Amino acid sequence: MHPVIFNATLEEILNLVGTFAFAESGALLAVRKNYDIVGMAVLALITAIGGGVIRDLIIGAHPPVAFTNANYLWLALLATILTFFAHPLLNRLNVAILVFDAAGLAVFCISGAIKALAYGLGPLPAILLGTLTAIGGGVMRDILAQDPPAVLRSGSELYALPAALGATIIVIIAHFAVNDSLTVGLTAVFVFVLRLLALRYHWRGPRPRRASDTR
Amino acid sequence: MHPVIFNATLEEILNLVGTFAFAESGALLAVRKNYDIVGMAVLALITAIGGGVIRDLIIGAHPPVAFTNANYLWLALLATILTFFAHPLLNRLNVAILVFDAAGLAVFCISGAIKALAYGLGPLPAILLGTLTAIGGGVMRDILAQDPPAVLRSGSELYALPAALGATIIVIIAHFAVNDSLTVGLTAVFVFVLRLLALRYHWRGPRPRRASDTR
Amino acid sequence: MHPVIFNATLEEILNLVGTFAFAESGALLAVRKNYDIVGMAVLALITAIGGGVIRDLIIGAHPPVAFTNANYLWLALLATILTFFAHPLLNRLNVAILVFDAAGLAVFCISGAIKALAYGLGPLPAILLGTLTAIGGGVMRDILAQDPPAVLRSGSELYALPAALGATIIVIIAHFAVNDSLTVGLTAVFVFVLRLLALRYHWRGPRPRRASDTR
Repeated sequence: MHPVIFNATLEEILNLVGTFAFAESGALLAVRKNYDIVGMAVLALITAIGGGVIRDLIIGAHPPVAFTNANYLWLALLATILTFFAHPLLNRLNVAILVFDAAGLAVFCISGAIKALAYGLGPLPAILLGTLTAIGGGVMRDILAQDPPAVLRSGSELYALPAALGATIIVIIAHFAVNDSLTVGLTAVFVFVLRLLALRYHWRGPRPRRASDTR
Repeated sequence: MHPVIFNATLEEILNLVGTFAFAESGALLAVRKNYDIVGMAVLALITAIGGGVIRDLIIGAHPPVAFTNANYLWLALLATILTFFAHPLLNRLNVAILVFDAAGLAVFCISGAIKALAYGLGPLPAILLGTLTAIGGGVMRDILAQDPPAVLRSGSELYALPAALGATIIVIIAHFAVNDSLTVGLTAVFVFVLRLLALRYHWRGPRPRRASDTR
Repeated sequence: MHPVIFNATLEEILNLVGTFAFAESGALLAVRKNYDIVGMAVLALITAIGGGVIRDLIIGAHPPVAFTNANYLWLALLATILTFFAHPLLNRLNVAILVFDAAGLAVFCISGAIKALAYGLGPLPAILLGTLTAIGGGVMRDILAQDPPAVLRSGSELYALPAALGATIIVIIAHFAVNDSLTVGLTAVFVFVLRLLALRYHWRGPRPRRASDTR
């Protein structure tokens, strides 16, 4: 495999964007659930750092970056306060939650796959870890808030697939050493747009035939 | 304590069997829940690798084996595709889910306890880790799919106990250095059969007396 | 930063008290849910060791203390057996669950923050880790038992805030090197009493204004 040298600044930018976006999705869901400001901060923080913590625990990066770089925590708290005061400006909470969630998904599948490659994981494990990093925070958010997880909902639109595709693209461009900022940025945009299009046009994966007896 | 030398091939066979069985239980539950093929793959993968990842994170084996040996991932994906096409051959989904789950439980309690001993954990922690390895994937599966977890359900049959017994037997036979393939294999069969008998005859643990006031 | 030398005996006492208190809260919830004795033990163990395991995994202390010192496990099993026989003496299960949970919260926010500082984490990450250690076990308990998590419940009283305050006090007193047994003990009492007062007088955090359209 080629040595994987991604731009460290680029990686941090992706992580900061994803942290803010996921924190917003958590804080806004907390508003919809009528939690108080402490509950908003808890849900924002867990959504924002959850996926990255899973990623770092699995590759053995101790302590996870959210516990070494306090910027991620401040950013999530900032998103909470912003949401506390400004959420009435968003006239559709659920749409806003989905858009921020899609942005987090788009950048974290990339940062997860990049870090997995940097730690020497093979292609398929890197794709899996990218996907887990992308969906981990949202899964924790939905389970804590007692919503059906976005990633597993009968009748829900493509969610894990855009993330897995984004991670796959990163693994491929790293292999061909074309992993510059432009291709990485375009991959993030691709995942983001794909998820939004899936939501807009209700794209779903094929379903197994229903068994006559589903006892 | 005696040095614990288990057969590495045996351990890998146990892990592969457990991975396939848990992946099937996840994929079949996804069919029952009417998820699409992506949801099936997500639930199959998480059920299959969840317990082993918890085990490896706790003992500090980084990255977990599911991320170093891609066979586990391919096997879970194979189980997903197989289930997608072949599930109508199973005329009772729920029974099939329980049987595959019992098989995963039986082999993972053993592989968890073996690995715990190999990493120098004491007897009681090894039993706990074996049990956690066995129940971890199924707990994640049930919580993600919003089912009551099999391990904690009022009125449910013995689930954690067969796993804890299996792990205990492994700790004992390792102590007396009789840990050959035959005894390990018999232990797996014992746990599997015990769980199925518990389901068939509704064996439950003793319950505390109900308080008159359970507020 | 000052070197953080906390009393090891003190830290172990805190951990033992918290383990027993959280195990009781889990075992009592299991009684309310009508689980059998195995379910009681599972819920007691996970509540008791959950937060500490998260703490140790994040700072990279492998294996977590619950797997190196079997006393924690025996203590949780003892709490289970005690609860099995003695729970009818408690005439209000829910109140007892809340009081034990508050005790666990009070000591684990401290042990989490102390250990985070000892491993070199900065002030904000140490506060976050202390809070996570305190709320982690209870979150797992509530999710496994399919209750809304105490930390995130519309209309619930302050829960994460007392824990975060306790962790903050520890970070401050460690900075000023006044971290003797007395101040640490007083901090635990402060968090415990604050949580109980919040429950008694229904103290809640400020809530964001409801959006007219919460779709």
